[in-house]
Amino acid sequence: MRGWCRVKLMRDLLRTPRGTRDWLPEEAAVKRMVEERIRAVFELYGYGEVCTPAFEHLELLVAKAGEEVVKQIYNFKDKGGRELGLRFELTTPIARIVASRPDLPKPIRFYYISPVWRYEEPQRGRLREFWQAGIELIGVEGPEGDAEVIAVAYEALRSAGLANFEVRLNDREVVEDLVASAGIHENRVPEALRVLDKLERFGEEYVVKELEKLGASTEAAQKLVERLKDGLEDFEPKSEKGERGLKRLQEILDLLKSAYHVDAQIDLAIVRGLGYYTSTVFEVKTPLVEVGSVAGGGRYDDLISSLGGPRLPATGMAIGIERVLEVLKASGSVQTRKTTEVHVLPIAGDKNVLAYALQAAGELRRLGVRTIVEYSQRSLSKMLEKALKAGARFAVIVGPSEISSSVVTIRDLEAREEFKLPIDRAASFIKSRMESMQA
Amino acid sequence: MRGWCRVKLMRDLLRTPRGTRDWLPEEAAVKRMVEERIRAVFELYGYGEVCTPAFEHLELLVAKAGEEVVKQIYNFKDKGGRELGLRFELTTPIARIVASRPDLPKPIRFYYISPVWRYEEPQRGRLREFWQAGIELIGVEGPEGDAEVIAVAYEALRSAGLANFEVRLNDREVVEDLVASAGIHENRVPEALRVLDKLERFGEEYVVKELEKLGASTEAAQKLVERLKDGLEDFEPKSEKGERGLKRLQEILDLLKSAYHVDAQIDLAIVRGLGYYTSTVFEVKTPLVEVGSVAGGGRYDDLISSLGGPRLPATGMAIGIERVLEVLKASGSVQTRKTTEVHVLPIAGDKNVLAYALQAAGELRRLGVRTIVEYSQRSLSKMLEKALKAGARFAVIVGPSEISSSVVTIRDLEAREEFKLPIDRAASFIKSRMESMQA
Repeated sequence: MRGWCRVKLMRDLLRTPRGTRDWLPEEAAVKRMVEERIRAVFELYGYGEVCTPAFEHLELLVAKAGEEVVKQIYNFKDKGGRELGLRFELTTPIARIVASRPDLPKPIRFYYISPVWRYEEPQRGRLREFWQAGIELIGVEGPEGDAEVIAVAYEALRSAGLANFEVRLNDREVVEDLVASAGIHENRVPEALRVLDKLERFGEEYVVKELEKLGASTEAAQKLVERLKDGLEDFEPKSEKGERGLKRLQEILDLLKSAYHVDAQIDLAIVRGLGYYTSTVFEVKTPLVEVGSVAGGGRYDDLISSLGGPRLPATGMAIGIERVLEVLKASGSVQTRKTTEVHVLPIAGDKNVLAYALQAAGELRRLGVRTIVEYSQRSLSKMLEKALKAGARFAVIVGPSEISSSVVTIRDLEAREEFKLPIDRAASFIKSRMESMQA
Repeated sequence: MRGWCRVKLMRDLLRTPRGTRDWLPEEAAVKRMVEERIRAVFELYGYGEVCTPAFEHLELLVAKAGEEVVKQIYNFKDKGGRELGLRFELTTPIARIVASRPDLPKPIRFYYISPVWRYEEPQRGRLREFWQAGIELIGVEGPEGDAEVIAVAYEALRSAGLANFEVRLNDREVVEDLVASAGIHENRVPEALRVLDKLERFGEEYVVKELEKLGASTEAAQKLVERLKDGLEDFEPKSEKGERGLKRLQEILDLLKSAYHVDAQIDLAIVRGLGYYTSTVFEVKTPLVEVGSVAGGGRYDDLISSLGGPRLPATGMAIGIERVLEVLKASGSVQTRKTTEVHVLPIAGDKNVLAYALQAAGELRRLGVRTIVEYSQRSLSKMLEKALKAGARFAVIVGPSEISSSVVTIRDLEAREEFKLPIDRAASFIKSRMESMQA
């Protein structure tokens, strides 16, 4: 291979595959902080963590996902010829667990914080590999189930630091009522829902044209689109389904308001892309994410039984971690943790000095102080400069003179003070100074 | 499809793909506890978390992995025709990051806690999807780098709860010296190392036969195997390489002892399967895991430059989370967290009662108490029974009479006492009782 070609190949290899990214420590720490805050809320509501494999039998994943999502599955054969696919969400894997374990006491409250994979065009705040934090409440039939799940989403987002967001609620049975009124045959309702889900992204004209293909007249299609935008004003459902859906929505709104102090609003344009939702669907929107939502979910009462499990009503939701991070960044509310690390600087290349430095570091770590030993053997001024740059608040300096008098030199890089103390007292001195600084 | 056939298909679909498993809350909580303890040690030593994509360009993964591991990669084409593979460890992805980011200040201290995938026969404590917690220390040349990495592994395992384990250390240059002495040509050294790595699993006879195929006489092959078992006694390296390796090993052992109080031992039979190690290799063994190790790692000074990055010396290690869990389980030292949750029991199907119960739950959660509201509308005795079974310490009972006198009834399920208090005082009462119980 010619030189330039090899270089180019290398450069390509050093990129992550398209649609994926690395998280380096600074960003990974913010991501973890957001995840831990969300996790705390999930646990407060009694949800327990589950982890599922990255890949599942392909047949399971496609069972109820809906055509749109199936196209996005990363699928492959393993070396034993099994057809597998990377999970594109966690609801289906969790439904599999529940279907196969009828012994689990109900209701079931599971949560997860996991990456998922979808082969779609990478967008802002949504790559091909992205992280979801979500819950599934399985075995609760009434609006109290939906309200709980929505309240958990709300609390988790608040706890993660989001301030300005709206919960928008809808019911697929109400949308089905509207679709039927537009003259679209029952058989084509799933397709019609997928079309309506694209209203925000692709616009009215596209949706009207697609609805026409499904059997609606131009006028009916336009009326339907208008209705989705106008909301409930003067809305009269034409079917029992529609009435049932509307009543349910009202009950959920009432519970959210009276019991959780959450103001949600009905938005007939919320449809959701996944195939398995049966009634309630919701999304959390923020003006800082122009397209899409920071969280979404709904009720899926048929999924578990369709996989061969018992009939179990269920509601779930997932928060998009990257989208939350994008909103926090846009609103300037990302605070990186201050490092409070100590750098230990041996000022001679001598074995004894290094061992002494490592012992000093050990004392500090025993007290829970993040400590790095500098191995570079540069000049003291260079090492101090580096420690300052890394955000260290203290440097511990050791050399032959410190060893001979059984002390270490502590430099407080912020207060610009210097102390000499025995190793063990040095560690507790630094620790208490750090605590008083943080207080 | 005939009925029984469909049922069988369903049953298969409800299993995780071969070699993978689910983690339900009880086990996931223990796994998380172990991970958090390991993470705390990593951070104490100044390591920062990185996350990399689940898949990489296949060409990157195979670059320096060694033949054995390459066979185990789950590889596939994405819908754009890119050859990808699931990561089988994290060292190569991290080497990719470092090679592509020459701006990162050195030394680099990265850690990860991530699943990896290898298509091999599922074994006890090692499935096809398994979790690794590891570190990479990049930019430190001398034995202080190896010693730090080994010390972090040691501390992390201790912190995770392991009591009885040994650190066994070796140097590939010493093994190469031995292989050369056995009359095996330089070109076949990588193959010879792979063969030697199988001594523990496949036994002496197998290894001797394979070494013969690589050019060793029967006698020389037997002598080599004996040497690996006997250790350093009367060992005289035949080459400069061997001498260098031996000296390095001694320096690492000394540092581990003097600075970290870690007793490691040299074990010439430790070779490691991965292709990229250049000198130091080590494993942590425990009698409770018969084959394999709970942690392992080594020095890989050529990996980053071979990927097109700068020449950077590096040492890393990874802990096998499932193996740690297996050891903890076998030694009976797994303690599951005590749940201290409260169940709120509405004793009438009434909307107001439910809203009142949800408010009481909200007060408890505001104080950080894990709280579940019972929606089943069963009899009080059934609900109390269920709360007890779930491990709840308190039940909060609400009904029309509680609402009319603006209180809730608190039942302490352990002390078998009952109290009536206003909602807000009830929450702080329960919280303080819980804290005094835990103290």
